[in-house]
Amino acid sequence: MSGETDLSDDARPDDIRSDAAADLEDLALDEDYALTAAFVEMVIDAADRGDGARLAELVRALRPADVADLMGFLTGDYREQIVPHIPADALAEILSELDTNIREEVLEIVAPATLAKALEDLDSDDAADVVDDLDDATRERVLAAMPAQERTAIEASLAYEDDTAGRLMQREVALAPQFWTAAQALDYLRQAGEALPELFFDLYVVDPAMRPVGAVSVSRLVRTAPETLLSEVMEPVTDIPVDMDQEEVAYIFDKYHLISAPVVERGGRLVGQITVDDVVGVIQEESEEDMLALANVSDAGRDASMFGIVRSRLPWLVVNLISETVAVSAIAIFQDEIAKIVALAVLLPIISSLGNNASVQTLAVAVRSLASRELNAANTWRVIWREVIAGIANGLALSVIMGAAVIAFYHDWKLALTASIALMADIIIAAIIGILAPLALEKLGRDPAVSSPIIVTFTTDFVGFFALLAIAALILT
Amino acid sequence: MSGETDLSDDARPDDIRSDAAADLEDLALDEDYALTAAFVEMVIDAADRGDGARLAELVRALRPADVADLMGFLTGDYREQIVPHIPADALAEILSELDTNIREEVLEIVAPATLAKALEDLDSDDAADVVDDLDDATRERVLAAMPAQERTAIEASLAYEDDTAGRLMQREVALAPQFWTAAQALDYLRQAGEALPELFFDLYVVDPAMRPVGAVSVSRLVRTAPETLLSEVMEPVTDIPVDMDQEEVAYIFDKYHLISAPVVERGGRLVGQITVDDVVGVIQEESEEDMLALANVSDAGRDASMFGIVRSRLPWLVVNLISETVAVSAIAIFQDEIAKIVALAVLLPIISSLGNNASVQTLAVAVRSLASRELNAANTWRVIWREVIAGIANGLALSVIMGAAVIAFYHDWKLALTASIALMADIIIAAIIGILAPLALEKLGRDPAVSSPIIVTFTTDFVGFFALLAIAALILT
Repeated sequence: MSGETDLSDDARPDDIRSDAAADLEDLALDEDYALTAAFVEMVIDAADRGDGARLAELVRALRPADVADLMGFLTGDYREQIVPHIPADALAEILSELDTNIREEVLEIVAPATLAKALEDLDSDDAADVVDDLDDATRERVLAAMPAQERTAIEASLAYEDDTAGRLMQREVALAPQFWTAAQALDYLRQAGEALPELFFDLYVVDPAMRPVGAVSVSRLVRTAPETLLSEVMEPVTDIPVDMDQEEVAYIFDKYHLISAPVVERGGRLVGQITVDDVVGVIQEESEEDMLALANVSDAGRDASMFGIVRSRLPWLVVNLISETVAVSAIAIFQDEIAKIVALAVLLPIISSLGNNASVQTLAVAVRSLASRELNAANTWRVIWREVIAGIANGLALSVIMGAAVIAFYHDWKLALTASIALMADIIIAAIIGILAPLALEKLGRDPAVSSPIIVTFTTDFVGFFALLAIAALILT
Repeated sequence: MSGETDLSDDARPDDIRSDAAADLEDLALDEDYALTAAFVEMVIDAADRGDGARLAELVRALRPADVADLMGFLTGDYREQIVPHIPADALAEILSELDTNIREEVLEIVAPATLAKALEDLDSDDAADVVDDLDDATRERVLAAMPAQERTAIEASLAYEDDTAGRLMQREVALAPQFWTAAQALDYLRQAGEALPELFFDLYVVDPAMRPVGAVSVSRLVRTAPETLLSEVMEPVTDIPVDMDQEEVAYIFDKYHLISAPVVERGGRLVGQITVDDVVGVIQEESEEDMLALANVSDAGRDASMFGIVRSRLPWLVVNLISETVAVSAIAIFQDEIAKIVALAVLLPIISSLGNNASVQTLAVAVRSLASRELNAANTWRVIWREVIAGIANGLALSVIMGAAVIAFYHDWKLALTASIALMADIIIAAIIGILAPLALEKLGRDPAVSSPIIVTFTTDFVGFFALLAIAALILT
């Protein structure tokens, strides 16, 4: 287990670390590269003893991403003790790795001048991300302490909307005119120095209006005959508009297996590039959002306080309480039937549970298919139809089992028939609402994962309750 | 909208395509780069008319990933008509983009010799993926028709277990001994030709035993003074053991922002490399798996048949029916109470719904935290404790609302007290089981997302039903 090949500038003073530090790192991470409980214990011990030298040693043994992890495993008090021991040249990268709520806390401790110095090491997108978390007063002071060029880059980045390509991109780009030869391009790369990104994969070929017309990968460039024109070896590129939503950007990178892509403003002028490592984070984020939304919970972030957890869940539970209160009105109408046949009260939750489960199955598949564009205008009707047919098949199978179970327990074929018909109706409705709710939300420009669970739960419960009791009223009493 | 910067060998004969083809592509994709319904219509029309020339033209206007998408939007009959019109040199890449169940279908149509020829263009990992889907007889014939070197590479790849680093890696690697200078390395890259991957990002530096000791990014190499030794500029690398699970690999790439990493066999010898584009697919896959598992549905794959959909859902629904039948036994015990106070039958589904919702919230957050290693041995107890406290807070808030609602509807403070206590108990149990179930499954080496929903639903329902009715029996009757 050793260091990393990293996109960002990861220069640490002790790149060739001492054996002791290497041993510490081995102790810090288990075979899965996750922080060990033993190491976290060591940090807590050192902090409890107030042993600053030991804390500094422990923190220095870790890579930035692991320091960020460590912070997540500690409580606020311990974090405060550790921050002063973070090496100045690792601070920026650790900050860009931290979760937002922990980062905000750390930023309050760090002096603006120290922060300004640290941020100069980051690519413009990562630096902007950190600055965005500062309160207004601190932000002014930090930006004022930075060199004009870096400040401008960060301010330009922050001018783009959250979650757009503009925020995701870095402004540092390697580019060349199309009339250059491979040899000229290599000479330029050798001499450009500071203007280039730390690490890059493609040299963008631009026309005189700075519009990208192609790209040559660096690994292709070094294998190209020196006198060859870039325009002869370049490959087509996929332009990313600067205002494109990051979810869209992730979809395009994933679909076409892009490693980097030029970002263009209106009119096609190149303004930056997005690299795949930025996109990996977005993909994680977007699919986590969908998963949490389907479970009716907002993202409280890592190490959320108890209050943060309650705030991310209670509102959804209250909405559920209200919608469920409406749904059970279908039961309240038929109280007389239940008083006569108490078995109905036993069957109600079974139908409700199965209806919910069936609708959430359909819903989850629909949300995933919408996110991956497998479900779109080209096949909407076919997918809806397939869901309905599958719903009918599932409903038939389940209602046969349900009917048999009711006969076995209650020896009442009329009650069995009632339960079977109600269950089948509910499973079919579950399939229909499970696919229509996310499609409708998407059509309205809303996130199909958010609110859908409440809608489908309410619908299947109401229909299930009403069907069972109305049929019971007709057949049984 | 133009072409792409692609990792794999995307050479198409018409890289500079005619204007007509470019117009067709504009028509094919909407602004979000998803296939348009209009284009799919055009393909279906051409197929209905039996117009092979038009079909060929339409397919040629698309990039491989879009052809794969198109296949997903069509039914089997239409796919069969299109396959003969796929250009031979695009076939391999289209195959590697297809969903498994569609790929299997297409592979049955393609002649083994054509397939063998096409596969030579792919990197060894992608080729192995395609070959893996062939039935045994066809596989033998395809492999027999390939040159020995490619065949060996594919057979070696298939020898690794599914979902491991060995299957994910490509064997083509750029490497150099540490005593070489930058100039020697560049000369080597220029001349190595076929042995190198189409596209690569890092030159791995190896010791005489072929163990990776560092890496130099190509973009750094071209900026390094010619006489500098590789050992002076190389950065540390993170070795990936060849038998590491792909989920683990994805975690490491994401955590350390890796672009590529060397894969080593036991003893540390370099056997291949994994690049970030392979990992993007894994990340998508793993988080989709979690999302579907939490919704109690197996992945039926794209364009699953009706039967495929039923098979991916019905078993879960049957398990739910059985577990719910057991849970409602708690209601059956107290049928006398319900007969006396029918309002209890109205309250049961509300408590069940809220309990489920609260437990699934906790469950989803826990599954996500386990996947991202935010929750591990270092903080398990703190997270459990936090969930319990949040559960108590949510339970208190909800039971106050519930109590008020019951008083409003039924003017019965004893019934309100009963409902409030039962709901609070259920919400607290929901928090506990929602965190303990996934932790226990993880501890047992099982997937924490699979089975958890059934366990938490059963527990919260049983506890909710029992609490409400037992308290009712004590207080009300």
